[in-house]
Amino acid sequence: MSEYTIAVLAGDGIGPEVMAEAEKVLNAVEQRFGISIKRNAYPVGGYAIDNHGEALPATTLLGCEQSDAILFGSIGGPKWDTLPLEQRPERAALLTLRSHFDLFSNLRPAKIYPGLEALSPLRADIAASGVDVLVVRELTSGIYFGQPKGREGEGEDTVAFDTMRYTQAEIRRIAHSAFKAAQYRRKKVSSVDKANVLVCSRLWREVTEEVAQEYPDVELEHIYIDNATMQLIKDPAQFDVMLCSNLFGDIISDECAMLTGSMGLLASASMNGEGFGLYEPAGGSAPDIAGQGIANPVAQILSASMMLRFSLGQAAAADAIDAAVVQTLADGVLTGELLDTANRHKAATTAQVGDAIVQRI
Amino acid sequence: MSEYTIAVLAGDGIGPEVMAEAEKVLNAVEQRFGISIKRNAYPVGGYAIDNHGEALPATTLLGCEQSDAILFGSIGGPKWDTLPLEQRPERAALLTLRSHFDLFSNLRPAKIYPGLEALSPLRADIAASGVDVLVVRELTSGIYFGQPKGREGEGEDTVAFDTMRYTQAEIRRIAHSAFKAAQYRRKKVSSVDKANVLVCSRLWREVTEEVAQEYPDVELEHIYIDNATMQLIKDPAQFDVMLCSNLFGDIISDECAMLTGSMGLLASASMNGEGFGLYEPAGGSAPDIAGQGIANPVAQILSASMMLRFSLGQAAAADAIDAAVVQTLADGVLTGELLDTANRHKAATTAQVGDAIVQRI
Ligand SMILES: CC(C)[C@H](C(=O)O)[C@@H](O)C(=O)O
Ligand SMILES: CC(C)[C@H](C(=O)O)[C@@H](O)C(=O)O
Repeated sequence: MSEYTIAVLAGDGIGPEVMAEAEKVLNAVEQRFGISIKRNAYPVGGYAIDNHGEALPATTLLGCEQSDAILFGSIGGPKWDTLPLEQRPERAALLTLRSHFDLFSNLRPAKIYPGLEALSPLRADIAASGVDVLVVRELTSGIYFGQPKGREGEGEDTVAFDTMRYTQAEIRRIAHSAFKAAQYRRKKVSSVDKANVLVCSRLWREVTEEVAQEYPDVELEHIYIDNATMQLIKDPAQFDVMLCSNLFGDIISDECAMLTGSMGLLASASMNGEGFGLYEPAGGSAPDIAGQGIANPVAQILSASMMLRFSLGQAAAADAIDAAVVQTLADGVLTGELLDTANRHKAATTAQVGDAIVQRI
Repeated sequence: MSEYTIAVLAGDGIGPEVMAEAEKVLNAVEQRFGISIKRNAYPVGGYAIDNHGEALPATTLLGCEQSDAILFGSIGGPKWDTLPLEQRPERAALLTLRSHFDLFSNLRPAKIYPGLEALSPLRADIAASGVDVLVVRELTSGIYFGQPKGREGEGEDTVAFDTMRYTQAEIRRIAHSAFKAAQYRRKKVSSVDKANVLVCSRLWREVTEEVAQEYPDVELEHIYIDNATMQLIKDPAQFDVMLCSNLFGDIISDECAMLTGSMGLLASASMNGEGFGLYEPAGGSAPDIAGQGIANPVAQILSASMMLRFSLGQAAAADAIDAAVVQTLADGVLTGELLDTANRHKAATTAQVGDAIVQRI
């Protein structure tokens, strides 16, 4: 029997309640596929600040190091927004985990599920043509981590600075992630940059062109970030894989998520070169609806599916979860935010959606 | 009689043909408002490269220096895309002009005109709630111009870097532009940043908060760039003035333009502290449709209106142009890209739209 150990970091807000549903789903695939996934829960985020004095306690980090993957919930909330930036949940926990485990390859799929076209904020004819994009975002370099970063001087002369910085090796490895992913999709990579202004983008173009030679079956195009932002709205169906630097990927992936109109259905993977990864929902901790049992657990459940696929090598189990999710949505078992006002009384609870997915596995 | 001198830089692609219509409109307001606007045409962009060896010849720059304002067309095209970056039209002409004249304050209004809601790529109910945003973009600092910027090393160790850099003084003056503009609008400033990651953004927040004290009638909110990109699509009506750094303003202003679905109707102003400015359409040189007499001249005509308002102090003339444009659109005198396929045979030519606006002044 294949045995795995994962670190479960549920975090704040709706994190714990949607994680409970993902655990039900993991139980179901353990049974059906004869695998064992040992789960150790660790504190993270605001909860960890309140109970252990910091957003990423040493025991949590150690627990992650001893695991095959991290299943992450969501962190943060107004309660911790007044802390100094370095101590806040997002930065102290999420950015530190990305950097510590060298999770450079961030995959953020965004698609409109069949039957849910009306949720898209796009005009009906554009939504009907489809959104099915995979954003491949570089996650451990660029302006997020480049040095120097700081401030100097006094009064009006105070100057702040951040450094966008990329090495050829950093660009090369994320480009490979994008081309590999495209080979399993519609075989097109749109590399997003600002090569008319940024030197980093020019190196990005050069390296991407070079890597493209190794994937003759995949088409490569370059697009400026400002134009990409527009084209996504006008004609999202033109995009398959979008390859982005850290900052541009932050922007583009959120735009793609919004275009689907169903953020609660989107998961993401952040992986290093050894198959280790952190898997988390695209949405935030949503403190306003936490504890009411109405949050959508699908993104968390699909995070578990991505984990099975990419870190645990259990593609069949991942396929089963994905199919069960599609079926559950098609059967109309939906949380309230996916329903229009007239049908909101038919909303399923967080647990009902989780149970429906388990039944279909 | 008030007399002014302006530099007319028509540029490439559709630039010259839409500029011809803007000149007709300037003739009309000269007559009606008893002002004189002397116009000197200078080469710029790809045209200047072909004929004078560089995108911004010294005579052009000198001509601009001797003028009250620059009326700019559009530049660039595939023909010049293979030149080294520094010599290309966008960089060598546009970025140099911005920097040379310290045109730090870039105003980019985007709105859906009455009757043209169906052009918006947004879902009908969202488009109906309206888009009417003024992006105030810092234009002469940030990662566009920050030093150091370059590359070093060899092979896989090659590293490229760009510096995002802002002084308190630079942030303060653009914040004032935004708050002043908001006082004449719906009195709300949404300052776009990435303060959870960038030190520049933290200084940006501090200074913006400080400046806000001087405008107690204007509401200030801070929003992360990733969230702003999403909220604009979900609920654009929540935004009035969006205050952005150079890079974020590039992205957000193009997103706003696309949300209206009518880029050919949008103009922009780039001004310094002395009232001098460069005025240009939001769209590009559109080489694919150049010379056919089908390009929309409205953005160029509204650029002339902004010039009259902001650099020449002729608000009444600007109001007359704006009203004539609204009337022309309402009367259905529209270029082809504003019409659906069924009505495209009713398309007016570039010159017909220009003439219709002149008639209504
Ligand atoms: C919380 C924040 C630092 C983070 C980022 O910018 O990467 C988030 O927006 C994301 O996209 O995961
Ligand atoms: C052409 C390019 C350098 C320019 C910019 O990025 O500022 C353009 O996109 C704009 O928005 O005016």
